[in-house]
Amino acid sequence: MTLRTRIYGLLDPESHGHAARQVRTVEVMLILVGISSVSAGTVASLPPGARAVAAFITGIVAVLFFFEYLTRLWVAPENPHLHLVSAGRSRFKWVLSAEGIIDLLAVIPALAMAYGSARLGAESASMFVLVWVLKLATHAPGVGLIARVFHNERSALAAAAALFAIVLFSAATIAHWLEGEHQQEHFGSIPASLWWAVVTLTTTGYGDAVPLSPAGRVLGGVVMLCGISVLALLAGILATGFSAEVRRREFVRIWELVAQVPFFSEVGAIAISDIVDRLRSRSYPAGATVIKKGAAGDSMFFIVSGEVEVFIGERVKKLVDGDFFGEMALLDRKPRSADVVTGTACTMLVLNVADFYQLAGQQPKLISAIEAEAKRRREGDTE
Amino acid sequence: MTLRTRIYGLLDPESHGHAARQVRTVEVMLILVGISSVSAGTVASLPPGARAVAAFITGIVAVLFFFEYLTRLWVAPENPHLHLVSAGRSRFKWVLSAEGIIDLLAVIPALAMAYGSARLGAESASMFVLVWVLKLATHAPGVGLIARVFHNERSALAAAAALFAIVLFSAATIAHWLEGEHQQEHFGSIPASLWWAVVTLTTTGYGDAVPLSPAGRVLGGVVMLCGISVLALLAGILATGFSAEVRRREFVRIWELVAQVPFFSEVGAIAISDIVDRLRSRSYPAGATVIKKGAAGDSMFFIVSGEVEVFIGERVKKLVDGDFFGEMALLDRKPRSADVVTGTACTMLVLNVADFYQLAGQQPKLISAIEAEAKRRREGDTE
Amino acid sequence: MTLRTRIYGLLDPESHGHAARQVRTVEVMLILVGISSVSAGTVASLPPGARAVAAFITGIVAVLFFFEYLTRLWVAPENPHLHLVSAGRSRFKWVLSAEGIIDLLAVIPALAMAYGSARLGAESASMFVLVWVLKLATHAPGVGLIARVFHNERSALAAAAALFAIVLFSAATIAHWLEGEHQQEHFGSIPASLWWAVVTLTTTGYGDAVPLSPAGRVLGGVVMLCGISVLALLAGILATGFSAEVRRREFVRIWELVAQVPFFSEVGAIAISDIVDRLRSRSYPAGATVIKKGAAGDSMFFIVSGEVEVFIGERVKKLVDGDFFGEMALLDRKPRSADVVTGTACTMLVLNVADFYQLAGQQPKLISAIEAEAKRRREGDTE
Amino acid sequence: MTLRTRIYGLLDPESHGHAARQVRTVEVMLILVGISSVSAGTVASLPPGARAVAAFITGIVAVLFFFEYLTRLWVAPENPHLHLVSAGRSRFKWVLSAEGIIDLLAVIPALAMAYGSARLGAESASMFVLVWVLKLATHAPGVGLIARVFHNERSALAAAAALFAIVLFSAATIAHWLEGEHQQEHFGSIPASLWWAVVTLTTTGYGDAVPLSPAGRVLGGVVMLCGISVLALLAGILATGFSAEVRRREFVRIWELVAQVPFFSEVGAIAISDIVDRLRSRSYPAGATVIKKGAAGDSMFFIVSGEVEVFIGERVKKLVDGDFFGEMALLDRKPRSADVVTGTACTMLVLNVADFYQLAGQQPKLISAIEAEAKRRREGDTE
Repeated sequence: MTLRTRIYGLLDPESHGHAARQVRTVEVMLILVGISSVSAGTVASLPPGARAVAAFITGIVAVLFFFEYLTRLWVAPENPHLHLVSAGRSRFKWVLSAEGIIDLLAVIPALAMAYGSARLGAESASMFVLVWVLKLATHAPGVGLIARVFHNERSALAAAAALFAIVLFSAATIAHWLEGEHQQEHFGSIPASLWWAVVTLTTTGYGDAVPLSPAGRVLGGVVMLCGISVLALLAGILATGFSAEVRRREFVRIWELVAQVPFFSEVGAIAISDIVDRLRSRSYPAGATVIKKGAAGDSMFFIVSGEVEVFIGERVKKLVDGDFFGEMALLDRKPRSADVVTGTACTMLVLNVADFYQLAGQQPKLISAIEAEAKRRREGDTE
Repeated sequence: MTLRTRIYGLLDPESHGHAARQVRTVEVMLILVGISSVSAGTVASLPPGARAVAAFITGIVAVLFFFEYLTRLWVAPENPHLHLVSAGRSRFKWVLSAEGIIDLLAVIPALAMAYGSARLGAESASMFVLVWVLKLATHAPGVGLIARVFHNERSALAAAAALFAIVLFSAATIAHWLEGEHQQEHFGSIPASLWWAVVTLTTTGYGDAVPLSPAGRVLGGVVMLCGISVLALLAGILATGFSAEVRRREFVRIWELVAQVPFFSEVGAIAISDIVDRLRSRSYPAGATVIKKGAAGDSMFFIVSGEVEVFIGERVKKLVDGDFFGEMALLDRKPRSADVVTGTACTMLVLNVADFYQLAGQQPKLISAIEAEAKRRREGDTE
Repeated sequence: MTLRTRIYGLLDPESHGHAARQVRTVEVMLILVGISSVSAGTVASLPPGARAVAAFITGIVAVLFFFEYLTRLWVAPENPHLHLVSAGRSRFKWVLSAEGIIDLLAVIPALAMAYGSARLGAESASMFVLVWVLKLATHAPGVGLIARVFHNERSALAAAAALFAIVLFSAATIAHWLEGEHQQEHFGSIPASLWWAVVTLTTTGYGDAVPLSPAGRVLGGVVMLCGISVLALLAGILATGFSAEVRRREFVRIWELVAQVPFFSEVGAIAISDIVDRLRSRSYPAGATVIKKGAAGDSMFFIVSGEVEVFIGERVKKLVDGDFFGEMALLDRKPRSADVVTGTACTMLVLNVADFYQLAGQQPKLISAIEAEAKRRREGDTE
Repeated sequence: MTLRTRIYGLLDPESHGHAARQVRTVEVMLILVGISSVSAGTVASLPPGARAVAAFITGIVAVLFFFEYLTRLWVAPENPHLHLVSAGRSRFKWVLSAEGIIDLLAVIPALAMAYGSARLGAESASMFVLVWVLKLATHAPGVGLIARVFHNERSALAAAAALFAIVLFSAATIAHWLEGEHQQEHFGSIPASLWWAVVTLTTTGYGDAVPLSPAGRVLGGVVMLCGISVLALLAGILATGFSAEVRRREFVRIWELVAQVPFFSEVGAIAISDIVDRLRSRSYPAGATVIKKGAAGDSMFFIVSGEVEVFIGERVKKLVDGDFFGEMALLDRKPRSADVVTGTACTMLVLNVADFYQLAGQQPKLISAIEAEAKRRREGDTE
């Protein structure tokens, strides 16, 4: 594995390793720091010292983004979606991709600082906030998932939006008739009424425009009720869509990990979807404590990649890819009898106690195999 | 297929083709433009020029609705719900249907403009907003679905409404006792208190009426808590009802499409409901890119109607109704190896990768058939 | 069936017939009219004439409740939960039950009117609102269901309440520290801060107390975020609980209706729970149109009790308990070919098209039986 | 069972017995009383008498917490997570655990009172509220469950938070551009705008900062819509996560109880997960009425531990661990024919009527066994 491959693995938004996740967290933190420092710079009453510090932090962040841009440009050929052509053309394609353009824009503040430094007005600086918000949208984990949910449910959301528009315009028009004469400022025209209608329908309720006539108040009550119904409907649509999309993504990811564990390969293809549905994946850095002796045990682990060390009293046992551990606490319902610490960065599949029992009903052979292995180990331990 | 049949297909609210969906989108946009221009016309402070532009746009939209009305009248005999009798009686039935009446009302602004043009007061113009909102309710996609959900869940919603009424009247009465003496204006009578109660129970919170005594504030806190509980309950009711109704509709639609794909007809009737549950439908206009070479592949496609062209290197392969494609990316987990572009407008069934794997567990024969075909193709390609 | 049995059937809150449901609707309307008239009576600015009308309506409603009380007292021995003893003791037990006491209290306004009529102050009259709200809670349909959901989920709701209390008290204390000095009135003590905290945490936001310091505003933002999380959590708890309870109730009700249809008795006990899950029940008064010729057919009907008349052209066919109809539109996907009108009040089980197809996968024999009958009918029709 | 074991059983947060639950309720009540009395003490306008009462109650609660601390320290060795070592080291470990530290801090007010009593300022007293809120978080039932849900769904919640941040910063920046010039105070800098953005995005809507320009109001409407979408999304995430976690916990708990009922042990391991899914557990104190003669019967009971007495007319029948009762009302759908009262504290498994019927479909043998036993009893009764 070359250095470029390894760095790409850290920057790939789809990699699930522990280190890659830390890199993403650092990036998100950096963007938030940058946004905060630019925001702080727009406060007119800030003392000059504080303003200089904010400008300095903004500069640092922008420079770091500049180096990030160069790194991402360098590793672009590793991207499987781009690497069908030569390295040069991959990089060119990345520069013109949405991500490439946004990452380039995010560097502008660094250049602006270099040229105009102190004279850069707060107004133009505030533009950077939007650029960095875009960068946040590109790199924040899970935003793609949520965008996908909105895309999947677009027809249902369009229906909810239509319902919203229907209630909104009806409410504004009727409110204009009922209140327009007496409250010229707030209900004197339909656009003015619309402001009241949207504030009420979303149950925000600023209180700047309030109906005063009895009929207007009845209308207001109806609009508020419609508002919480639309909100409830929206919650229903997104709840359904979100849980379906998450289930679908998890299934594919776990399926790919299961394929790497020899233990499961003996199970036929038909049975495997039962198993995939019940496993969860987890990543650990090197040296992390996976199991603490004496703790309550509520799950067992299958090692997909990496090495762990099991400390039973004085002895240390090494387990590698394809091994499993932690099953004894599930079978005997007793506290953990050993410490387990990762030797290298690890990816594991975790089987919860409830899922273990339910799987015992659907796939009795699999559980027997685990029990047989556990028995063998116990006997081995007492030897 | 006659011209009338074809035009009816574009205007039928239940047709799922690409062109029909575009027609619906244009219609919704047109209604929204019309509503906006009428709304703008009610702003008293608008300069005469802008007002004239708004009136002109309103007129254009109303005239377009007039032609739409004539078109819908002409194609009415194609409507399967109306065509049991003679063409004339079908049209007469349509004119008297809810849709017919609303579409006729939507034309009135055009006539009003023609006769009274500039002298038409803003007040009477604002009436048009409601007529066009009704038209929006008739033609916006998905409003029928939502109406159905509310109808299905009417008994649960009535229970929630009863709960709402119980809390509302109790809160208003108690608030009247606690605060009535000191805040004569806001809590001096039960109807006055009701306004505070509804504003608080829906968590809108205008802030125009606020309890001041400690006991009144405790009551206020309880009412707010009841409010978020009612909202949560409503969300639960609508979420359950919405997902059930969507599932039911999709099932019927997909079932009908599956019946048109010979590949599935070999599967027995018992197995087919597993398959129907997992497929999604998608429509494409002619010339659309369905698959892009090099992209990650997460679904395969079955052609229900239409033609696609597969560009593998220099060669072009034509696939027609009943064929499937895109299965290789699922089986091998590699980027797409060809561009696929629609030759005509197409309707397809899409099988997601997660559903593909899960189906592999439930219907192994179906997946074997797909694998066999994929193998045959790969060998054919290397010939 | 004696008159007393029949009247009890109309008043029983658990009976699902059409007439019983109408009686319940009338009762709820009557209570709401009563509450409204009492409420109107508390408006001091009302002209004496309007006040007299409100008092008159209040009196009428109270008198009607008096007769209702007598009727319910008379039919109490029909109540299966009370009829284990003699009729006299059943009535005595009912008088002392929660329902009996509330229904008695609801009569008091009638007596109060009789004795004190005009001199009865608005203050004491407003007490009636609460009594009638209690009566609404007893008789409104579905309130028992919702109460049951809250009872089932009481431990989860207690957890959410604990979370709410934890955030509430923490927020109030910290806000008191941050804002107490400068805004003595709103944040000067923890109880005062609590008012701000509850208004903010439920996202009501009256705006009467607002943090002004930067730290206070950060706290405010965090509290609002916690507020929408608590609301979301509550929605999750109630959505889960509500859908489980509704499913459970429906299952029992449909199970009992299915037992009355001989057609289903041939299906074994094992298969029946598949069927029960898919059927819905519906009640019709005599003379109602169940199916309209030419309409799209999306469900078939099994008659549990009552008689329907099928109008095919000139002929009229009578179907009775245990028969089914409407299956042809499902099998052929064509508009309805006959009008079907109820001859007597009917209870039916409805099978939706999506459920029909899915059942075809799970219970092929049942569907074959329906198809055989449909074929027999079609041949019979052409004879 | 020693006294220490028994007391530990009462204090163990994971024990589900009736008495343990009452102890937890008392503890929560005590904490809430303490928080209330400290809060009351911060009201400057309180008369000295009331203040003294509040201080006295605070003192009492703190002293009770002192004794509670000693008791928990004493029983620490019974804690299975700590008892691997000697009693002394168990206690030491508990003292250093999060729970131990918080419980110790909760005692401080008692000491503070003892030393400084009246001179203790309201400011420092308010610190106690936070300590006791922490104690509430440790001991309130279900808080651990909710924390677990948030932990499980952390990646989805992070995505929602990122979405929230993206909308928040974009809205604040754009509002600053649109409104900054005219409303210097509220929109003059991005941090100031952020306050408006968060108040609007959570739909709290204090109304202290409101956009006035048309463009600002359009932005406001969009932000409100985003707000209800984010709320809906959050509800979806938490609803999914919450129901999954509850199901998982229940499964494990019921599984362990089922293992103690011999009746179920005859069912094979494969079938048992069907059963576990349908049972619920319930605890009763001694002398509680489980079934009331004449009531409608909608569930049957399996005794896990404890004794019940069945009163059939004059006779009394004793049932012990492993027996079941209440099945006749399910089989015959008639009111309960006997009173059943617990003789000792009992834990039971409850099978609902809907689940009973559904189980009849999946596990016909189990239901036959129950029917056989019911028949045997009925014959025994008539002997």
